[in-house]
Amino acid sequence: MSYDRKELIMRANVLAEALPYIHRLSGKTVVIKYGGNAMKDEGVTHTILEDVALLKIVGVNPILVHGGGPDINTMLNRLSIQPNFHNGLRVTDRETMEVVQMVLCGRLNKDITSRLNCLGARAIGICGKDGRLIEARKKAADDGTDLGFVGEIVRVNPKFLRLLQEDEFIPVIASVGTDEEGNSYNINADTAAAEIASALRAEKLIFLTDIDGVRRDPDDPASLIPALTVSEVSDLIRRGVISGGMIPKLEACVRCIEQGINRVHIINGTVPHPVMLEIFTDTGIGTMVTA
Amino acid sequence: MSYDRKELIMRANVLAEALPYIHRLSGKTVVIKYGGNAMKDEGVTHTILEDVALLKIVGVNPILVHGGGPDINTMLNRLSIQPNFHNGLRVTDRETMEVVQMVLCGRLNKDITSRLNCLGARAIGICGKDGRLIEARKKAADDGTDLGFVGEIVRVNPKFLRLLQEDEFIPVIASVGTDEEGNSYNINADTAAAEIASALRAEKLIFLTDIDGVRRDPDDPASLIPALTVSEVSDLIRRGVISGGMIPKLEACVRCIEQGINRVHIINGTVPHPVMLEIFTDTGIGTMVTA
Amino acid sequence: MSYDRKELIMRANVLAEALPYIHRLSGKTVVIKYGGNAMKDEGVTHTILEDVALLKIVGVNPILVHGGGPDINTMLNRLSIQPNFHNGLRVTDRETMEVVQMVLCGRLNKDITSRLNCLGARAIGICGKDGRLIEARKKAADDGTDLGFVGEIVRVNPKFLRLLQEDEFIPVIASVGTDEEGNSYNINADTAAAEIASALRAEKLIFLTDIDGVRRDPDDPASLIPALTVSEVSDLIRRGVISGGMIPKLEACVRCIEQGINRVHIINGTVPHPVMLEIFTDTGIGTMVTA
Amino acid sequence: MSYDRKELIMRANVLAEALPYIHRLSGKTVVIKYGGNAMKDEGVTHTILEDVALLKIVGVNPILVHGGGPDINTMLNRLSIQPNFHNGLRVTDRETMEVVQMVLCGRLNKDITSRLNCLGARAIGICGKDGRLIEARKKAADDGTDLGFVGEIVRVNPKFLRLLQEDEFIPVIASVGTDEEGNSYNINADTAAAEIASALRAEKLIFLTDIDGVRRDPDDPASLIPALTVSEVSDLIRRGVISGGMIPKLEACVRCIEQGINRVHIINGTVPHPVMLEIFTDTGIGTMVTA
Amino acid sequence: MSYDRKELIMRANVLAEALPYIHRLSGKTVVIKYGGNAMKDEGVTHTILEDVALLKIVGVNPILVHGGGPDINTMLNRLSIQPNFHNGLRVTDRETMEVVQMVLCGRLNKDITSRLNCLGARAIGICGKDGRLIEARKKAADDGTDLGFVGEIVRVNPKFLRLLQEDEFIPVIASVGTDEEGNSYNINADTAAAEIASALRAEKLIFLTDIDGVRRDPDDPASLIPALTVSEVSDLIRRGVISGGMIPKLEACVRCIEQGINRVHIINGTVPHPVMLEIFTDTGIGTMVTA
Amino acid sequence: MSYDRKELIMRANVLAEALPYIHRLSGKTVVIKYGGNAMKDEGVTHTILEDVALLKIVGVNPILVHGGGPDINTMLNRLSIQPNFHNGLRVTDRETMEVVQMVLCGRLNKDITSRLNCLGARAIGICGKDGRLIEARKKAADDGTDLGFVGEIVRVNPKFLRLLQEDEFIPVIASVGTDEEGNSYNINADTAAAEIASALRAEKLIFLTDIDGVRRDPDDPASLIPALTVSEVSDLIRRGVISGGMIPKLEACVRCIEQGINRVHIINGTVPHPVMLEIFTDTGIGTMVTA
Repeated sequence: MSYDRKELIMRANVLAEALPYIHRLSGKTVVIKYGGNAMKDEGVTHTILEDVALLKIVGVNPILVHGGGPDINTMLNRLSIQPNFHNGLRVTDRETMEVVQMVLCGRLNKDITSRLNCLGARAIGICGKDGRLIEARKKAADDGTDLGFVGEIVRVNPKFLRLLQEDEFIPVIASVGTDEEGNSYNINADTAAAEIASALRAEKLIFLTDIDGVRRDPDDPASLIPALTVSEVSDLIRRGVISGGMIPKLEACVRCIEQGINRVHIINGTVPHPVMLEIFTDTGIGTMVTA
Repeated sequence: MSYDRKELIMRANVLAEALPYIHRLSGKTVVIKYGGNAMKDEGVTHTILEDVALLKIVGVNPILVHGGGPDINTMLNRLSIQPNFHNGLRVTDRETMEVVQMVLCGRLNKDITSRLNCLGARAIGICGKDGRLIEARKKAADDGTDLGFVGEIVRVNPKFLRLLQEDEFIPVIASVGTDEEGNSYNINADTAAAEIASALRAEKLIFLTDIDGVRRDPDDPASLIPALTVSEVSDLIRRGVISGGMIPKLEACVRCIEQGINRVHIINGTVPHPVMLEIFTDTGIGTMVTA
Repeated sequence: MSYDRKELIMRANVLAEALPYIHRLSGKTVVIKYGGNAMKDEGVTHTILEDVALLKIVGVNPILVHGGGPDINTMLNRLSIQPNFHNGLRVTDRETMEVVQMVLCGRLNKDITSRLNCLGARAIGICGKDGRLIEARKKAADDGTDLGFVGEIVRVNPKFLRLLQEDEFIPVIASVGTDEEGNSYNINADTAAAEIASALRAEKLIFLTDIDGVRRDPDDPASLIPALTVSEVSDLIRRGVISGGMIPKLEACVRCIEQGINRVHIINGTVPHPVMLEIFTDTGIGTMVTA
Repeated sequence: MSYDRKELIMRANVLAEALPYIHRLSGKTVVIKYGGNAMKDEGVTHTILEDVALLKIVGVNPILVHGGGPDINTMLNRLSIQPNFHNGLRVTDRETMEVVQMVLCGRLNKDITSRLNCLGARAIGICGKDGRLIEARKKAADDGTDLGFVGEIVRVNPKFLRLLQEDEFIPVIASVGTDEEGNSYNINADTAAAEIASALRAEKLIFLTDIDGVRRDPDDPASLIPALTVSEVSDLIRRGVISGGMIPKLEACVRCIEQGINRVHIINGTVPHPVMLEIFTDTGIGTMVTA
Repeated sequence: MSYDRKELIMRANVLAEALPYIHRLSGKTVVIKYGGNAMKDEGVTHTILEDVALLKIVGVNPILVHGGGPDINTMLNRLSIQPNFHNGLRVTDRETMEVVQMVLCGRLNKDITSRLNCLGARAIGICGKDGRLIEARKKAADDGTDLGFVGEIVRVNPKFLRLLQEDEFIPVIASVGTDEEGNSYNINADTAAAEIASALRAEKLIFLTDIDGVRRDPDDPASLIPALTVSEVSDLIRRGVISGGMIPKLEACVRCIEQGINRVHIINGTVPHPVMLEIFTDTGIGTMVTA
Repeated sequence: MSYDRKELIMRANVLAEALPYIHRLSGKTVVIKYGGNAMKDEGVTHTILEDVALLKIVGVNPILVHGGGPDINTMLNRLSIQPNFHNGLRVTDRETMEVVQMVLCGRLNKDITSRLNCLGARAIGICGKDGRLIEARKKAADDGTDLGFVGEIVRVNPKFLRLLQEDEFIPVIASVGTDEEGNSYNINADTAAAEIASALRAEKLIFLTDIDGVRRDPDDPASLIPALTVSEVSDLIRRGVISGGMIPKLEACVRCIEQGINRVHIINGTVPHPVMLEIFTDTGIGTMVTA
């Protein structure tokens, strides 16, 4: 066996670049919101779960938060439960919520957990009802309509997560909340990830989306902005550089920073190994927002 | 306010009797198999869950193991999945297993967990797939027929349970197992409880059933035998005192003792507070088998 | 063997009522002043010592403080030491004090300790001279007369007691104090108990007396008041509901609360198992004073 | 101020000689039997107690074991309790034993404790009844006569002593034992010291006597033997060099060594600072027996 | 900013490959022998020291062992100390040894230490005399000639190294040994590295040389053998595949394995970042010998 | 063997006097500056190193700081390096600094370390470059002339020293400093000792000099002042009692006290065992300055 000197130098550089990042993140918590389109590509999903398992291996504490997906609607259809909308918002009645919980906590959550375990990890699949992790209450529509069991988070009780991450375990969390009477609530997974990251004073919160991050020119991939401060975000919005659907996403990032999370990342979850590339290389692959 | 001296003395005696048992069980693990008819009576179920929560409060480490119930068949019916039997044994194909897992882990498990939490406990609902808690393999029928995803336990990895019980948490475990490829298996809940108790070197394993324990005369409640040794069990079977359905139950108890569990109890789960009465009083309410 | 369902339910209720109290007191310190008439009834004394031993067993840290009794006078008589009174107050000269110490520390203290040990406890009998536990100084009579070795407490050094109660030991303390020159002082046992409880920031201080607690109507046992706040005590005294010998007792309780003890109980030490009934039942048997 | 070079060198040598001994004994247990004539000289007693306090200060764990003295007989006389002898052995009836315990535990023990505390130590005075430290049983006379409450040691429970010496406390132990029924027994203090040293695997056991140690020629102080092995002891006895009352003393030392104590010292307790001189100088002042 | 997908995948692969190795080496000791030609190239030396610093950053415990170099001869020349040879072996007289120690410990050792510290590390430069790290004795020539202060290792006392590596410090060790009289000995640095690795039960021992490792065909770089077991080494030597100067090197590796080191690496120290490439990539760049 | 009672009493008194000092210094840091004339007398040097080793044995943490001596000039001469003076100050060019470092760190430091180890200690010889212990910068002459590598201390990083002294090791420190570029600086050893003592919040700083301490009458040894407060020093200087070279020495002591060192001692390092005599006797042999 021989070696190509040029490739060796490249490899050495990748490692020399990554090692200090690995060191800095060691023992820190990284909350990863995974869902939507990033869930669709089987091959990429595999590399995302590999990233999560590898993070744990090198001493970082990843936490995976996920919402639902098409499985829920499929099951509602099979059970002939009619969707009920009010002004475009879905009303989640008790029967629907039971199905949502059953599919989210009994199928998706256990599947992700199981796949991580097949990669050698020790993942534990739970939802916000376990240990009263996510305390929630009914969320009122703007016009006061009862949307059923759609919830907003009242409090996160992170002690159980700390216990898991001080040990070898990786929490996989389905975004279902609960109240004092034991009701279940459907919780937005982005919000759940942000609140959990905030309660744990996470070092990083990573949103795996299907876009590349923030670009100065939406049509030019080369205009990707790798890092933004909170004040730069305001500035770019004011100057109209950022517009459309990216505005609420960035505003959410800013709120996370204000809640005490150090770094919030928006990255493209359809690239292989997106988490590792974002956090273990100098330039990353998406946009990082910091204080 | 005044007091009735006789009642005071009675109360004092109950406490003086219970305190040493509380002390002896402090820090010990008690695995409770809960299911079947004991699940039906809402009021009694409430006292059982109260017992579990109270045990944790006084420093005992309860673990609740449960199987399924009528909900699974209801859901299979609603989804028009036809039961498939072979020589009287149910064949669990992949689609059926998916429904079993969804109902067991996504509904029943979360409901029990939630009810314990409403009593002030911090319960965590998991299944054998989490942290690879229950490693299983396909169980062959005696005639070699493929029964699908009916599993037998290969190994229990109890580290995660130890973590929970060294803290304030109560594990609630749905009896689903997994293999290296991430498949799910339906596991007999009695067996799961016994293997988990054995892996944790539990002090006690309690089967909540719908009978009172072992009687010398099946028709005479007063003939209940509060305690039996393994050799006394053999003796009673040999002499024909015990017969019928009680034989396999007692044989299971004997196997548990041989696996290192100190005490195995068969008690009537339809009496209020059955766990507390069995373990914190001198006579108990059921039958205890010991080495 | 069979069981009476009504009795089972009663037992279950006593336990379900007691368990949360046991939990709340776990690891907490309970100082018990024992003496006077409560010492006379041999049978009741036995149940009091059982209560103390049982408290330790379930993780509470009892401390027993006692004064003297008729043995001291008997010994003074046998040694022909004449009592010497000044304005009705006993003058404790050096010779008398030597006898007091010898009987209190060498007989009574060791007897109580020994009886607790015969119940399976590990009691350690000490006095305020050991480890300079109770630092005292001469107490002057109001008219300035030298009363000899009657002392008032200057400081309590509780470190040794903490050491004992963090382990399996129960301190039994004779109320003798000491000064820098090594003199011995006779200390009022109620005061010693209160100061020790205060120095240890005890959860409870229990005075075992020969009355039932505070009654609205002294002649009506049914008028016992189970709980009083400090301001309610003032109110009852002002309104004349409480009178006579109960006033100084309650004023002492109020001072204890002001010194940082959470709860002070006055209970009838002539009822069997008085300590357990007071602290492990909802209504108790005496009167509890809190902030 | 100036200094005398010769004295400086002498002082330096004393210190350089002592420091390694101090180091070697640091954290080790030294049991000191103190009694008899060594108790009589007030000035020397003071230096012995200073030695004990200084040992603790430099990290050694001294334990003082003492028996009674003339105070017991004085008190028996004052109470007109007649001594009762059988074949020259004193019979200790219950009344006598009560006085013995009262004087030993209530007066002598507390006095020694108090004096140590006046030297800045934190001494705790206990007897063998505390924490069941010394379990004893009735000792039969050779002819089977009942000698009353004269006891022989069955077992020593040293846990409480370990607790004290791991902290800042010095145990002072009166040689009274107890049995399961709570009876008190008079125990020979030499035996008590040896059994306690053995149970604690003490580094040293020191008998403070009124002789200088073992001499080759009883009349020649210069013939003192500073160190003997167990086999040298046998040899000296066999060859008649040692005779008379020294034989049982040395035989006792040999038994101590056999029970696992490293070094047993017989030293003259009437010399000032006898403990410090024996253990912190190269030659010592008495005779040390080792394996 | 944009990114090249191909490069991203390559980087992701390098990281995914390295992370498990980083994990496996975390907390483990890696002894690196550095010297000779590897010391000459300033640029490569810089990358070697970077590797050492990065290892420490990711939780590995590197230890650098070095010998001398041309500086020693330069200084001997400047001081006009004539070399003295016996049968081709250098005789190290006391004057020569003083110069060797002065240059090795006072110049080279402090320079390496200082350069590591300039890279952000906390290196500590010591030699075998510190803490009696390397106990040595005079090494006799085969014909018995006195070679002066050429030493062979008698024992390594690694406690001090453990202390350093449990903290943030990196030991840099000059290969000078000492004996009980405080003499200094010149020790072969390869031997010192091997003995230190063995005493610490190091996970890896890496020899940085100026060759690429073991080749099947010495002239064909592509024939490099990345991994050999001890028995394969014997086999290759017997079959004549390995010959010349590589034989003693491999025999030394085999001895290291026999002394309990898990893996011994021979790598080319003139390649940039040689340590990182060897231990954090699947194929490495040299030859690894294992049991 | 016999004993002389007078000598026994004297020995007992020396010990009784020393033990409380040993206790008070236990676990405390004592920095000892050793150099100049105190280094010349081989016999006294031996007793100084014995003192250092004995201090460690009884639990005190000594740290030895040393500067250079005649060896440096000898080596400069042998290497024909011409001294270069500017206004009477030596200019330390790079070549000179290399020789200074080589002799100080490679010879003197290792020799002292080795001698301590021959006394049974575990000394570790380091300089200010190790672990960046002494961060320094170029010290400018008053007239701005470049004096080369003469340094002044910027910061002391004492963590490594703490690590050593929490274990069995004695640091021996050569007074060489370093900057961020890895340059070496010659540091005044008195200053280095004071800064190290201050960074460690040492209990004591001892300057071993060749004078006896401060005298009221320089010619009268009997006028030695054993202890001075900072304000007494000012007073003595103002009143002219202290004059000449003693003034800067005492001013240095005062600065040390102001930097948080508790006690600074000036003692005669030519007396045998000077350290032990100063700190373990009531009067000491030199002058102690305190706040």
